Amino acid sequence: MASHLIDFLLIGNNFGTPEMRDVWSEQNRLTKQVEVEVALALAEGELGIIPQEAANTIAEKADAGALNVEDIAKDAARMKHSLMPTITAIQKQCGAAGEFIHYGVTTQDIVDTATVLQLKQSFDIVFRDTQLLAVELKRLSKKHQYTLMTGRTHGMQALPTTFGFKLAVWLDEFVRHLERLSEIKQRVLVGNINGAIGTYASFGEKGPEIERLTLDKLGLNTPNIGWQSARDRFSEYASIVVLISGTLGKIGNELYNLMRTEINEIEEPFSEGKIGSTTMPHKRNPAALEGLASLTAPVFKSAALIHESMKVEHERDAMSWRAEWIALPEINIYLSAQLQNALGILRGMSVNEKQMLANLELQNGLLLSEKVMFEIGTRLGKQTAHHLVYECAMRAFEKNQSFKSVLLEHPVLSAQLTSAELDEWLNPANYLGSAPQKVDDVIRYANNSGLLPA
Amino acid sequence: MASHLIDFLLIGNNFGTPEMRDVWSEQNRLTKQVEVEVALALAEGELGIIPQEAANTIAEKADAGALNVEDIAKDAARMKHSLMPTITAIQKQCGAAGEFIHYGVTTQDIVDTATVLQLKQSFDIVFRDTQLLAVELKRLSKKHQYTLMTGRTHGMQALPTTFGFKLAVWLDEFVRHLERLSEIKQRVLVGNINGAIGTYASFGEKGPEIERLTLDKLGLNTPNIGWQSARDRFSEYASIVVLISGTLGKIGNELYNLMRTEINEIEEPFSEGKIGSTTMPHKRNPAALEGLASLTAPVFKSAALIHESMKVEHERDAMSWRAEWIALPEINIYLSAQLQNALGILRGMSVNEKQMLANLELQNGLLLSEKVMFEIGTRLGKQTAHHLVYECAMRAFEKNQSFKSVLLEHPVLSAQLTSAELDEWLNPANYLGSAPQKVDDVIRYANNSGLLPA
Amino acid sequence: MASHLIDFLLIGNNFGTPEMRDVWSEQNRLTKQVEVEVALALAEGELGIIPQEAANTIAEKADAGALNVEDIAKDAARMKHSLMPTITAIQKQCGAAGEFIHYGVTTQDIVDTATVLQLKQSFDIVFRDTQLLAVELKRLSKKHQYTLMTGRTHGMQALPTTFGFKLAVWLDEFVRHLERLSEIKQRVLVGNINGAIGTYASFGEKGPEIERLTLDKLGLNTPNIGWQSARDRFSEYASIVVLISGTLGKIGNELYNLMRTEINEIEEPFSEGKIGSTTMPHKRNPAALEGLASLTAPVFKSAALIHESMKVEHERDAMSWRAEWIALPEINIYLSAQLQNALGILRGMSVNEKQMLANLELQNGLLLSEKVMFEIGTRLGKQTAHHLVYECAMRAFEKNQSFKSVLLEHPVLSAQLTSAELDEWLNPANYLGSAPQKVDDVIRYANNSGLLPA
Amino acid sequence: MASHLIDFLLIGNNFGTPEMRDVWSEQNRLTKQVEVEVALALAEGELGIIPQEAANTIAEKADAGALNVEDIAKDAARMKHSLMPTITAIQKQCGAAGEFIHYGVTTQDIVDTATVLQLKQSFDIVFRDTQLLAVELKRLSKKHQYTLMTGRTHGMQALPTTFGFKLAVWLDEFVRHLERLSEIKQRVLVGNINGAIGTYASFGEKGPEIERLTLDKLGLNTPNIGWQSARDRFSEYASIVVLISGTLGKIGNELYNLMRTEINEIEEPFSEGKIGSTTMPHKRNPAALEGLASLTAPVFKSAALIHESMKVEHERDAMSWRAEWIALPEINIYLSAQLQNALGILRGMSVNEKQMLANLELQNGLLLSEKVMFEIGTRLGKQTAHHLVYECAMRAFEKNQSFKSVLLEHPVLSAQLTSAELDEWLNPANYLGSAPQKVDDVIRYANNSGLLPA
Repeated sequence: MASHLIDFLLIGNNFGTPEMRDVWSEQNRLTKQVEVEVALALAEGELGIIPQEAANTIAEKADAGALNVEDIAKDAARMKHSLMPTITAIQKQCGAAGEFIHYGVTTQDIVDTATVLQLKQSFDIVFRDTQLLAVELKRLSKKHQYTLMTGRTHGMQALPTTFGFKLAVWLDEFVRHLERLSEIKQRVLVGNINGAIGTYASFGEKGPEIERLTLDKLGLNTPNIGWQSARDRFSEYASIVVLISGTLGKIGNELYNLMRTEINEIEEPFSEGKIGSTTMPHKRNPAALEGLASLTAPVFKSAALIHESMKVEHERDAMSWRAEWIALPEINIYLSAQLQNALGILRGMSVNEKQMLANLELQNGLLLSEKVMFEIGTRLGKQTAHHLVYECAMRAFEKNQSFKSVLLEHPVLSAQLTSAELDEWLNPANYLGSAPQKVDDVIRYANNSGLLPA
Repeated sequence: MASHLIDFLLIGNNFGTPEMRDVWSEQNRLTKQVEVEVALALAEGELGIIPQEAANTIAEKADAGALNVEDIAKDAARMKHSLMPTITAIQKQCGAAGEFIHYGVTTQDIVDTATVLQLKQSFDIVFRDTQLLAVELKRLSKKHQYTLMTGRTHGMQALPTTFGFKLAVWLDEFVRHLERLSEIKQRVLVGNINGAIGTYASFGEKGPEIERLTLDKLGLNTPNIGWQSARDRFSEYASIVVLISGTLGKIGNELYNLMRTEINEIEEPFSEGKIGSTTMPHKRNPAALEGLASLTAPVFKSAALIHESMKVEHERDAMSWRAEWIALPEINIYLSAQLQNALGILRGMSVNEKQMLANLELQNGLLLSEKVMFEIGTRLGKQTAHHLVYECAMRAFEKNQSFKSVLLEHPVLSAQLTSAELDEWLNPANYLGSAPQKVDDVIRYANNSGLLPA
Repeated sequence: MASHLIDFLLIGNNFGTPEMRDVWSEQNRLTKQVEVEVALALAEGELGIIPQEAANTIAEKADAGALNVEDIAKDAARMKHSLMPTITAIQKQCGAAGEFIHYGVTTQDIVDTATVLQLKQSFDIVFRDTQLLAVELKRLSKKHQYTLMTGRTHGMQALPTTFGFKLAVWLDEFVRHLERLSEIKQRVLVGNINGAIGTYASFGEKGPEIERLTLDKLGLNTPNIGWQSARDRFSEYASIVVLISGTLGKIGNELYNLMRTEINEIEEPFSEGKIGSTTMPHKRNPAALEGLASLTAPVFKSAALIHESMKVEHERDAMSWRAEWIALPEINIYLSAQLQNALGILRGMSVNEKQMLANLELQNGLLLSEKVMFEIGTRLGKQTAHHLVYECAMRAFEKNQSFKSVLLEHPVLSAQLTSAELDEWLNPANYLGSAPQKVDDVIRYANNSGLLPA
Repeated sequence: MASHLIDFLLIGNNFGTPEMRDVWSEQNRLTKQVEVEVALALAEGELGIIPQEAANTIAEKADAGALNVEDIAKDAARMKHSLMPTITAIQKQCGAAGEFIHYGVTTQDIVDTATVLQLKQSFDIVFRDTQLLAVELKRLSKKHQYTLMTGRTHGMQALPTTFGFKLAVWLDEFVRHLERLSEIKQRVLVGNINGAIGTYASFGEKGPEIERLTLDKLGLNTPNIGWQSARDRFSEYASIVVLISGTLGKIGNELYNLMRTEINEIEEPFSEGKIGSTTMPHKRNPAALEGLASLTAPVFKSAALIHESMKVEHERDAMSWRAEWIALPEINIYLSAQLQNALGILRGMSVNEKQMLANLELQNGLLLSEKVMFEIGTRLGKQTAHHLVYECAMRAFEKNQSFKSVLLEHPVLSAQLTSAELDEWLNPANYLGSAPQKVDDVIRYANNSGLLPA
């Protein structure tokens, strides 16, 4: 059985989706490597570098699915080489034509280009789920455009807001993520077929043509110059994953906090059969939210590892390279779990609007101290108002009294305001500022971005 | 005296440029905060939120340069607040109009927007120096388009290449960096003026107008919605700094390796008076190169710290925020030193072309084993050629014999090739592939990008 | 003015203590370097390597405090060397004897050993404050040994506990930190005086003696062999700082959560004149707690940077070295702020015992579901009990009913228990397990450790 | 097939040993969890908490090897719980006695204690291989105590040293690692059986006894107080792994550099059948060394992830917990590969003593400039000597002349020295300082440490 929990039967699905695991499976790795060898052979056939017939045979016979991976693994151990035994095995599949497989390229050409093919599959999944999340956030922020709740800063109740406003901040962030993904796509999904040190020396004069034709067949872009020693593209992709995962971790943490027993404003989806605790029957744990929040740190660490792969020595080395091998699958797999998990949470969570209203009342009116201050400020000046209202707020807080009554009893302020005015000012619904309007602004921007699905 | 080496008199310039330190100095921080307060007052004056006259007075009298920072620091310690004492001090400068400073905003509006103003200054410096490096790399890669040298993989000599080819890989990378900087500029340089929890509640109905007008005056973009709880922009900027610094660290490490006594192909600029070692008179150390290489790790660590600031709780918190305070200046300051240092190195380094040629001969012809294999492959088939040439290469290596003589003595191969052919094949200049052409390709791309200075 | 916030007048004290900043100030760095040169001269005088009289003169005249650092900085820029100009300046102070300063050593001998002297000062501060925190936690855990509060898992109320139990977990952790500091002290505080590549070649035969005598004079241990290329000691120290800072960050985060408006079980010390918000008069923010929690991430990042310095090339290089220069001061400075901040918080925080009791009642008895389950388990078997009690707990939760009444109305359970029994079982004070006893266990262990101050 | 390369058939063995993978396999995870449940049942039987007979049945029947993991995985997906379905499956194995499995504990008690059992297995492997490496380094440093080679600083040739001296520095470091492992062993290998929030409430009064007896049976230490919310032990272990891996990465990088074509002083073990390059027949790559060097960065990243798990909220949470689940296996698995790889390299590498001697001559005598300076210093004073010798060294370097001839031609110096003296001074073997003696010192220390195998 597996030793990395990404591949664990019991808990693997908490750390990645089956779909994304497939992209980065050893089988798919081999499949993509064979795809590159085939595309190369076809290109070389067309350009007369190898016999056209041999190319056709290779395209027909090379079959990653039919390889005996355990045998290849044994050869790999003996040769201490990660690709050669695979090539040998395909050569056997192709008979005499096998001689023309891997013509003029170096191991890293194949491995890197195959990795970019896997990355392309990952990219599409990530883009799709990022879109779906944006759609869901759009729906929810509109739905809760006017759902009153407490805004909090520094963990403390601060001012009233709406749940839709909070969601719109996230939506805006996701639209930015879609912009970023769009911008980097063409720059990142670039193959590399240019020989041992990138000079195409082994191809003769047609090197650049072979590369372009091979990559065209694979649906990848062609670089200006080989990037065996320039790994910034993977790091750039990792950086965007960091940003998306950062937002997802924040959302997970936020909803986890809103689900605390004492706040109780949302609840993550609860399904029949779910066990909270093996010992405490009443526990309904934010397991999905913790899962969502927990994967950002691993993504950050793995992304940082990819960044270190930028430090290539000379024309190539295999030290920094392995950082990519380890970490590129990891960031995609962890992110896939976060994206799908977030989708499930947003689609199924309960929003406890009653408790949201109750929490607005928790401080006996202090939540609106700013509003009161500004209103009084128009009469007594801002600094004076700040001073007096601060005094009343501290008293209400320390004596646990209603803010309204403290204000009405204040020697100076009592002359400046009426009970009816205070009721008006202390009503959270009257102090939302432009929160609902901003929800519409963000949705309009999202709709106009052209980045959401039609 | 300072306790962080960024501010050390003796070695501070190894870790940052005076120009960039000025951007992130405490003085400039205050200056930018006052600029934001002034722009806000002017906007609020125009929109009738505060008296126009008060706004004018504030614009005229508020003077960051005249503040007594030590006094403010004492107040800050007492109030346990980082902005309030500054505001109070400016209010004093403005007399009665002071009452209208900071109207309706929260501390973080001012601090964040001021930080973006500093970031804008940083951005311009980074963009300028990245351009200058691209220009320098363009010049050098053209100059050395045909300068023969050894290509190395896994630290071992692999095939001949040209120094210009190596430089063109770097140039291509720098053009990508310029693309990235251009793409993120408008998305990142965005201010934020929307009150305690981003809802503009304290501004009344004109909140969004006040924000836009204030930010227009400051030359910053306006967000769709407040980003006090959405810090992805700083992380995005940090990610690009990571990429640029990653390339610079790689270049530093590469040239450091090429300067090793045993390789000796380049030498960093040497100036009169420079001391290599206090005890070994002969030492000429790659001090500048080590400096260049050494700052990538700190940039990576600080950038990772900024990423963690994405995890904001609720509408704002001050835990993640401090990560930005610490690390945003750090990445810019370290990067500024790397950029300037790299410029100096590229402009002044010696290229030891004689030694480059000598190193090509170091393996007695083995460097061209691939070429020989391909040529023989056209006669005996690739696999057979690989087998036979491998045999000869191993023999030449182990017996320290000339590759040519081993080939000529080989029972099978000797019948297939002549000494004259071997001289042709073993000439490094004949096995550069498309290296020189690629240099031109990259330069053409760079010129057409519109990103290099005219 | 400074550009790194460690040295900012306004906010620097949030990121370090003046005491620790002094240890790592540029002035103290020079002072320690001169101390090493003086100790070396005296040792060399005693051993007849240099004239005893010259050694005495050096000890008498060399004066770091009298150096003109700005002049030295100018020379450093010219020589591109960080120590040579300092040596030259001291030589001038010493007249003819100056010739014998720095005899036989290399720059790194002096710089490294001086750094260890600074580290020793840091170590003592960290040890002292860690002790003080243990003392404070001992006092508080005893004081609150029986202070009832809610235990929470996954952010949700779980079972009753005592505040003293929570504090005792922290105390136990701090005693472990003191053990760790004690264990590494002798291994870490080791100087290094052995010449350019550690072989003492320049000292003649008395190298090891010179080293031992010099380090004895400085109060440092002597290594078995030079460690210019073995930097594990700094990384080991950094690792312990990580552990201490990790605990402090956890405590900051925990108390921040307990101070949330909706939980409200503790409040950080509040002093006259403290400003919560510039715009919301009622806000009393957990500023100190956020400060405490926020510095763990920077410590972790800087410690990770120190770890990277382990990768020295050959007998020495200056790439990895700079990571230490940057990060060793940082971790000590940030930690000093955390330690002092935590001390202030623990000494001055308010514990809101009334609210702790109120929160225990928040779930209408569900908090004790485990207790009920175990009691019923003794009558109906554990699995059956889990099943039935789970059913009741879910009903009470979903219908927002009292757990007691749901249990009493349950067809099966009602026959198994009485209202009086339930009152007994649902009383949090009756379900503390061994919590209070464990507080005593930990305190006994702490007292017996010999690590707390007498 | 697997999606994480730790479990890849083709390349998995580059990233971990089969032995260590087994420790962290999903199968062993289940096995250890069942072991904990069994030990708990036996302890509870002895203490009369559950029937002794039931305990015996559980001990007899519970069989992790016979579990159907795929079925359990399906239940886990339904219950959204990672342990419950395992418990249910063992209960089925035990019939009526199954009711008494998992009595009074919480999921995390079992999972954490099982993890510590796995960690104990890891610890033993790591300790064993660290010992073996120390033994190997001891052998090699003695063997090469007098093997002359070039010492290098800043990548440049500096002074002569011996290969044994270099190895002794590593040996000294490994002895420190063994000390560290010994010191932390008892502190780290501590189980945890104390219920939902650590108070033993569900056990009644015998909680602490149950815990101690259970952990005694498992061969683990008992904590003073529960550590569900105090995770410093895993971080401490991770820190030591960081140090060991840091040394191993340094060694890998060092030997990689010494194997460079241009330096060529060592060669990693070469086995029949090993393929260097698929395209360049002459290439003999430092594949094992790159593998050794490459795994330090992943270990560092994963260790940093474990550090973040210290930030537990309240009595427990599952966010930080998962960081341990991911990273604790990773650091052990990567380290296992590094340790075994390093052993193989040290045992089988070739030391090219001839080339080491040749490299000492590469600079035409400049390598001994320090020696010459000190000798002349005794005649002309150190500062004067430095000045004059520096002048000659620069001339020899720039004109590529023999250092000896430049010295002999120098107007001042020529009067001070003879050709015979220079031959003496410029002989590397005469300028080793105390290098060979230090090798003996370190070996003596290692032997006396009691930490190496008998």
